[in-house]
Amino acid sequence: MTVRVGILGATGAVGQRFIKLLTNHDTFELAALTASESSVGKQYSNAAKWRINTPIPENIGSMTVKSTTPDAISDDIDLLFSSLPSDVAADVEPAFLEAGYVVSSNSSNDRMSADIPLTIPEINPGHLDLIEVQRDNRGWDGALVKNPNCSTITMVPTLAALDQFGLETVSVSTLQAVSGAGYSGVTSMEIIDNTIPYIGGEEPKMQQESRKLLGEFDGASVSLHEMDVAASCNRIPTLDGHLENVFAETTADVSAEEAIDAMESVPGADLPSSPDQLIHVFDDPSRPQPRLDRERGNGMQISAGGVTVTDAGLKYNCLAHNTIRGAAGASLLNGELLVDAGWV
Amino acid sequence: MTVRVGILGATGAVGQRFIKLLTNHDTFELAALTASESSVGKQYSNAAKWRINTPIPENIGSMTVKSTTPDAISDDIDLLFSSLPSDVAADVEPAFLEAGYVVSSNSSNDRMSADIPLTIPEINPGHLDLIEVQRDNRGWDGALVKNPNCSTITMVPTLAALDQFGLETVSVSTLQAVSGAGYSGVTSMEIIDNTIPYIGGEEPKMQQESRKLLGEFDGASVSLHEMDVAASCNRIPTLDGHLENVFAETTADVSAEEAIDAMESVPGADLPSSPDQLIHVFDDPSRPQPRLDRERGNGMQISAGGVTVTDAGLKYNCLAHNTIRGAAGASLLNGELLVDAGWV
Amino acid sequence: MTVRVGILGATGAVGQRFIKLLTNHDTFELAALTASESSVGKQYSNAAKWRINTPIPENIGSMTVKSTTPDAISDDIDLLFSSLPSDVAADVEPAFLEAGYVVSSNSSNDRMSADIPLTIPEINPGHLDLIEVQRDNRGWDGALVKNPNCSTITMVPTLAALDQFGLETVSVSTLQAVSGAGYSGVTSMEIIDNTIPYIGGEEPKMQQESRKLLGEFDGASVSLHEMDVAASCNRIPTLDGHLENVFAETTADVSAEEAIDAMESVPGADLPSSPDQLIHVFDDPSRPQPRLDRERGNGMQISAGGVTVTDAGLKYNCLAHNTIRGAAGASLLNGELLVDAGWV
Amino acid sequence: MTVRVGILGATGAVGQRFIKLLTNHDTFELAALTASESSVGKQYSNAAKWRINTPIPENIGSMTVKSTTPDAISDDIDLLFSSLPSDVAADVEPAFLEAGYVVSSNSSNDRMSADIPLTIPEINPGHLDLIEVQRDNRGWDGALVKNPNCSTITMVPTLAALDQFGLETVSVSTLQAVSGAGYSGVTSMEIIDNTIPYIGGEEPKMQQESRKLLGEFDGASVSLHEMDVAASCNRIPTLDGHLENVFAETTADVSAEEAIDAMESVPGADLPSSPDQLIHVFDDPSRPQPRLDRERGNGMQISAGGVTVTDAGLKYNCLAHNTIRGAAGASLLNGELLVDAGWV
Repeated sequence: MTVRVGILGATGAVGQRFIKLLTNHDTFELAALTASESSVGKQYSNAAKWRINTPIPENIGSMTVKSTTPDAISDDIDLLFSSLPSDVAADVEPAFLEAGYVVSSNSSNDRMSADIPLTIPEINPGHLDLIEVQRDNRGWDGALVKNPNCSTITMVPTLAALDQFGLETVSVSTLQAVSGAGYSGVTSMEIIDNTIPYIGGEEPKMQQESRKLLGEFDGASVSLHEMDVAASCNRIPTLDGHLENVFAETTADVSAEEAIDAMESVPGADLPSSPDQLIHVFDDPSRPQPRLDRERGNGMQISAGGVTVTDAGLKYNCLAHNTIRGAAGASLLNGELLVDAGWV
Repeated sequence: MTVRVGILGATGAVGQRFIKLLTNHDTFELAALTASESSVGKQYSNAAKWRINTPIPENIGSMTVKSTTPDAISDDIDLLFSSLPSDVAADVEPAFLEAGYVVSSNSSNDRMSADIPLTIPEINPGHLDLIEVQRDNRGWDGALVKNPNCSTITMVPTLAALDQFGLETVSVSTLQAVSGAGYSGVTSMEIIDNTIPYIGGEEPKMQQESRKLLGEFDGASVSLHEMDVAASCNRIPTLDGHLENVFAETTADVSAEEAIDAMESVPGADLPSSPDQLIHVFDDPSRPQPRLDRERGNGMQISAGGVTVTDAGLKYNCLAHNTIRGAAGASLLNGELLVDAGWV
Repeated sequence: MTVRVGILGATGAVGQRFIKLLTNHDTFELAALTASESSVGKQYSNAAKWRINTPIPENIGSMTVKSTTPDAISDDIDLLFSSLPSDVAADVEPAFLEAGYVVSSNSSNDRMSADIPLTIPEINPGHLDLIEVQRDNRGWDGALVKNPNCSTITMVPTLAALDQFGLETVSVSTLQAVSGAGYSGVTSMEIIDNTIPYIGGEEPKMQQESRKLLGEFDGASVSLHEMDVAASCNRIPTLDGHLENVFAETTADVSAEEAIDAMESVPGADLPSSPDQLIHVFDDPSRPQPRLDRERGNGMQISAGGVTVTDAGLKYNCLAHNTIRGAAGASLLNGELLVDAGWV
Repeated sequence: MTVRVGILGATGAVGQRFIKLLTNHDTFELAALTASESSVGKQYSNAAKWRINTPIPENIGSMTVKSTTPDAISDDIDLLFSSLPSDVAADVEPAFLEAGYVVSSNSSNDRMSADIPLTIPEINPGHLDLIEVQRDNRGWDGALVKNPNCSTITMVPTLAALDQFGLETVSVSTLQAVSGAGYSGVTSMEIIDNTIPYIGGEEPKMQQESRKLLGEFDGASVSLHEMDVAASCNRIPTLDGHLENVFAETTADVSAEEAIDAMESVPGADLPSSPDQLIHVFDDPSRPQPRLDRERGNGMQISAGGVTVTDAGLKYNCLAHNTIRGAAGASLLNGELLVDAGWV
């Protein structure tokens, strides 16, 4: 069975990643591309400044870019992926939902709204049923699911694995790649031989989204997980791959071996883009490293390492490819979950 | 009064920093340079591969490099600075101490030894009196003082400021510059577009040295501070300046304002190379940044910023120039303390 | 004697360099700062996003930013430095000239105009007399002098030294730092682990300006030098300092020693900011290097090295600090020349 | 038909690239790995510090590393690839040739020897018949072919295309990636925010090898091409991909269009690893760029761009992946040529 999909905001950095991921997808067929008004009516290859180091697939390059409105795209699109800037998404996504479209969105708006599911398919697929609540509340015919922020999604799978030991306090320091800020987000003069210990809005996202993702869904609402989370977010001179140092205090004692076992035991989801094993844990304490390990599992696997028990609790490092597992791949996987769960 | 000083291990990266710092020193006169056997007898300018972006001072460049033995240097040297590799220092420093020299050492060996003072002059100058114990124990005529590791020294001044609120647990994540590994310590292929979440031996140093520095000296020994410290150390693609994200849990409640006041209230020491104010706290949450702020106070001031109270405790960032405040400048300042306290 | 000076376009990257250079100038007193309308009326420290790693001088930070119009600045300004974007400069500079101001401009517009002197004080100070022609042609009471492009000024002093051997063909390849594009000119995603072999407009500038600078002035006009110049310009991941590989074919035979002698024999100008010797030539073939050598002579000296005779002619490398010698410092030096020559 | 191949010097950077390229080769079966004595007897996965961002193929990781001597490897190896350091290769390769092995070597020794073929299969495959001369001269049963240096091989295909216009003088400036120096060849402190305008031995290699590659083989010897070549070689902060600016003076007039046509008309060789079209020429003057374009044609295609006619002649840029097309891939292709031509 083929699912016809479209991309809202197809010319940007995440939009390009969507195209690359969808090009070889077994069941999704890319049938619509939208962008802002200056691109509408152009061939995609002329509208996008393509930045990926493999050429634009020919059949995609010749597609005509459409306006980001429900009227502009044909009715036979089954599923939309959104990589719109969050302010644009807040304006535009509701129209598609009212028009009955199912949307898997990477945009950051509305992630913490009580009736919007925020999901990682391997971690909290059941939250998807918030769609029922959402439809009741909003009168939408469509359905909207969000994936978390790139820095959140890097850490949360490891926390999910450790939650059996009673997570109390989590402090996390991130070393984030420049691609997370979009193509023009970080200038070269800002970052060569430098580091910026601040990313606007990022720390609250990590602190809140992680608690929703690990929260319990009772059929009506998600209660936030009780753990306290403190995040310090840094931009460093790497291109792709967010590395994070996590310090976790748990109610139960946990050895490094138990923590590693727990992480390695998290299965992939039974979905096309999910890896067999969600988290790979390295023995070598100098791994994971962004450039060497970000492509594991086609960029969809989480890596971890340096798992150590200290006087102050457990500490370890984790890594994910921020524009694949942390953005386009995260939405894609939610799209696969929507299909699998019968919402598409 | 002029103090005649020498440098043990003068050709390496830290040795070169010593030379730069000593060149314009008001009271210290550089009178002896030693290095490994392959350099002995050469003019310094031929022995050292000079890597600092100002030329070697002419009078230093023409000095003859001597062997790193007490016999090789003249008796009228009052104070020695050591930037020997720690394994060499372990072999060689004792001979100088037996011969009666006063040594301010940056080498990492023996920092945790019970009778070796580990000092930051603005923080724990009183620990210097461990020299009495040291002389009793070891029968040395000289005196040995160590400064802490570069990553430790970046954080400890801020912790000293916060200790009044009852430090219980400290988690710290470091973003360390490549110069900390010495000139050839990190290859370009390791670090371009990459990060290494591991620096051998660095985490135990931070976890232990910080507790000794903040420990109490009762005239006979230093009792370690009771706080728990967890450190995760990362090497990133910056040249100079270690940036650190600190998460601190305290027994007393502390507001961001109180924390900032406490940090800004730490005075410099009354020594030539100490800044007037030890810690500068930025309002701008995106500061301190390594390239913009590492030279503050001639590289001797600590910078801090991003002071925030979270559910999980206080968090903030701090920065120091790792080869000045974190290495050569730290030893130099200890040398000034030794003179001021009458040990030289 | 104090000369009261102003900066047109004081908030940008070159404007900030002007401020840094003027802060400690012996005879120039900074008395006016202008910027675009959004900054007008603000204190300079609030208007500029200061990017230099030493703080804004206090007395400058508190100055009020004025509009870039002759009316906005007081009459007792003797000399203006312009770092306006070239399109703005084309609109705005003429008004100041009509109003009688003497302007030393770094903006690229009008550099090749027949009646605008394009000068490097150590190389072609006599071209300044084009001001007579300029006043006749344009009816200006003021005077306008331009300095060449940063990549041109790095190479031309070495060519001037070699011109005695009969320059026929010059091919030059540049490795240019990102600061040359302004603070936001090159994104991090464009340049990390990458190189861009194209800088819009740069190659024609080098090919034309070099011929004007080395051209002969007969009192009425400058005839372009007859050499053929081919330039390939690359942006690389360095912060400051343009390095250039020059290949020069000459009518006369020239040995490496003769070429080196010729370069080292170019004196500085007798002006406050000119180095004693204009070009320093390294013996070490691996020098000059941008990070190690860009600060020579306070960023005003040209470095050269690798001088070699090949079957295809002479080749060598040269380097200059692109925002000092190549921009703000170049204009400053032209300002000093204007004063020395009696135009101010 | 399967060809059983071995790698001499399998643990280094180029050795690892050989393994990656051979893993999926249709006709070559990797059957022997050798390395220096410290690795002999170990499993490959323990002997090599694997640095490629895909895991070691399992069946290769479990192979036992052998000594680099003819006795240590089995007789049924048909073809050897050598990535030994050139000094080791000079000592060791002759023993394999005397023992009858056919060796395709990337090592730089002996490239200019009169009886050693230096080949790029798409450019000068006929030079391979120097093997006859070689066997006569040296009494070898085996055969030795070399590929050129990585910086030479990037430029020579474009020169071969232009030679129809009468190449007289070629000046070339290279911007070379750090991987060309091997894993530890360039330290991070040397190259971050910096450039090194010198690579020992590189310039003579480019100047000489290019003339041999384009020289004529008359059955007995290769006469060097008469063009004059001047090369300036720079190391810049990129990981992979050498970019080169070429300035070419020709006896015949040549337009940019003619030059582009000539380059685009060079066919690939009819060998498994050769691209269909050897040189891709970009219209976009800002391309090729190392990070975006080095992987074209699985790293085996040459890219060019910026083709322009200036007063001083033709100029253009070219790019190749230095450890694939410039090293391991070059040897592999020569190996395929040896098989195709019947020497294996």
